[in-house]
Amino acid sequence: MKTIIDDKTKPVGSLGLLEDIALQIGKIQLSDAPEIRKPHIIVFAGDHGIAATGKVNPYPQEITALMVENFLRGGAAINVFCRQNNIGLTIADSGVNADLSAWNNHPQFIAAKTGWGTNNYEDGPAMSFQETEQAIAAGRAIIDNIASTGCNTIGFGEMGIGNSSSASLLMAAMLHLPLEKTVGRGTGASDEQLRVKLDTLKQVMKKHQGVVTLQSPLKTLQYFGGYEIAMMTGAYLAAAKKRMVIVVDGFIATAALLVAREIDPEVTDCCIYAHCSGEQGHHRMLHHLGARPLLNLGLRLGEGTGSALAMPLIESAVRFVKEMATLSSLVAKTGIPT
Amino acid sequence: MKTIIDDKTKPVGSLGLLEDIALQIGKIQLSDAPEIRKPHIIVFAGDHGIAATGKVNPYPQEITALMVENFLRGGAAINVFCRQNNIGLTIADSGVNADLSAWNNHPQFIAAKTGWGTNNYEDGPAMSFQETEQAIAAGRAIIDNIASTGCNTIGFGEMGIGNSSSASLLMAAMLHLPLEKTVGRGTGASDEQLRVKLDTLKQVMKKHQGVVTLQSPLKTLQYFGGYEIAMMTGAYLAAAKKRMVIVVDGFIATAALLVAREIDPEVTDCCIYAHCSGEQGHHRMLHHLGARPLLNLGLRLGEGTGSALAMPLIESAVRFVKEMATLSSLVAKTGIPT
Repeated sequence: MKTIIDDKTKPVGSLGLLEDIALQIGKIQLSDAPEIRKPHIIVFAGDHGIAATGKVNPYPQEITALMVENFLRGGAAINVFCRQNNIGLTIADSGVNADLSAWNNHPQFIAAKTGWGTNNYEDGPAMSFQETEQAIAAGRAIIDNIASTGCNTIGFGEMGIGNSSSASLLMAAMLHLPLEKTVGRGTGASDEQLRVKLDTLKQVMKKHQGVVTLQSPLKTLQYFGGYEIAMMTGAYLAAAKKRMVIVVDGFIATAALLVAREIDPEVTDCCIYAHCSGEQGHHRMLHHLGARPLLNLGLRLGEGTGSALAMPLIESAVRFVKEMATLSSLVAKTGIPT
Repeated sequence: MKTIIDDKTKPVGSLGLLEDIALQIGKIQLSDAPEIRKPHIIVFAGDHGIAATGKVNPYPQEITALMVENFLRGGAAINVFCRQNNIGLTIADSGVNADLSAWNNHPQFIAAKTGWGTNNYEDGPAMSFQETEQAIAAGRAIIDNIASTGCNTIGFGEMGIGNSSSASLLMAAMLHLPLEKTVGRGTGASDEQLRVKLDTLKQVMKKHQGVVTLQSPLKTLQYFGGYEIAMMTGAYLAAAKKRMVIVVDGFIATAALLVAREIDPEVTDCCIYAHCSGEQGHHRMLHHLGARPLLNLGLRLGEGTGSALAMPLIESAVRFVKEMATLSSLVAKTGIPT
């Protein structure tokens, strides 16, 4: 594959990161002619018990369900970017605290509620252990379905008021970092809101620290996660098993990857990092993963928008391998040395 | 426009740089519903007298003509990315040192030779003053033609063995920087080649310093430029006059912009910076221009490839303004405060 790339009509290495991406996709697909087929983004939506307190989130919990409806009507940013870039889009109700059954027949909707919002982790674990396993299995099942349609490239987005707090707790536990380094403004906390968010999460960490640091990644996920994060964890695991190209989105999606990687370290072999978001902890996560993200646009929206925006670049990486002329053909035509 | 963007179903500012790009395009087009119409890239190709010495370029001059033929056969990187992203592509022979008249009837070819390669600036000015003006006028004319087809978004690429040396000299003269800060490896000079390149260009600068620092940007362009850089300069000036969105590519394309900006400082109002290239001087140029490039992929190929790769992001910026639902409609449906 390296030989093929170096024989294209360009100086060696001059396509920079795109050459590395092409090499990586070749390795994932065990092919010298890698392809992006039926790229798809799944947005996992779930609610968080903590959100009802208003301590960590500037927006009310009801926004989660409203945004799911917005996705299904085609009016959100992720809809726009998926339409533009020919990316399939599915919305999974992982655990929204609202009745969304009216949408059950919508072709882009998957009803996969594990619960009606998680418990508040100020009081106890966010989910039961059984719920955690159930959500992971549901995430795996969605990937198995989508892979069977011929899709080989997948991105995961999320929607869930309060879920940047879950991600910060998971990141702190997984990477052994103080919360000061993992808590950020989410979708738009003010200075005062940020202070309250940090104080609240410190209390939560203190309460559960013993359990989450001594036990498994599944246990950490159970205590701090959300249904959408657990489903995403399962989806990562299944997608890597199927050797799909996984396009990793922002802060919350990367937090779920940290959990998946603890369970199966080979998951990241299949991961391409779409972007570095504006959420402060994300840069640190990416650094820890040795990731070189394709974009750095200061996005902090979630929904999988970074993955959708990066997809054309990933397509470009496989296309130049497939479509460019070779130096050897150029030389053959003219006898000019290269 | 800011009000329209802030009423979309997303937290304020959460689309980061895309929001700024949308605002800028709105200002360029004096519209609240900006549009990218018939995006087009023009690759200007020209040869450089210095290249015959082999002192500054690892590849022989003949590669310029070979690559022009590669463009016209559709086999280069820029062809791949333009096809993928539905960008029109035209190749202008600005001054290639080879007979390309066999291609005169190719629909993507513009025969606009000002000369058969420039003079070696080790001996005297690269071009005559009349040639410089002629090349600028030819660049303007191409833009006038393309604009008349309904295109409102344009990127400029270049091909010319030795032209990173021209760009380094122009950058040094325009920004009053020592050549150490403007000379880089181009498409792939080794350490030893880089040393010879730098020494050679220092001699050139010494010889012409009096003329280029005391006189006009046109004079600097005459001494250090190439035909393709002069045509690009004219193209920038004409595109800005027509209020086109200008997608600025890499090191050589940005050097031409430095010249155009000296002639008309308002040119940069219309400029979006596609990427920060792997060529060391480019980062410094962009910093000087206050630019926030969309991509940072370590590209160092030229041809307009960075502009072609960034085009989908620019399209995304106008699409979210046009297609996303509004918060006010969401609130109207449910009465939830935002």
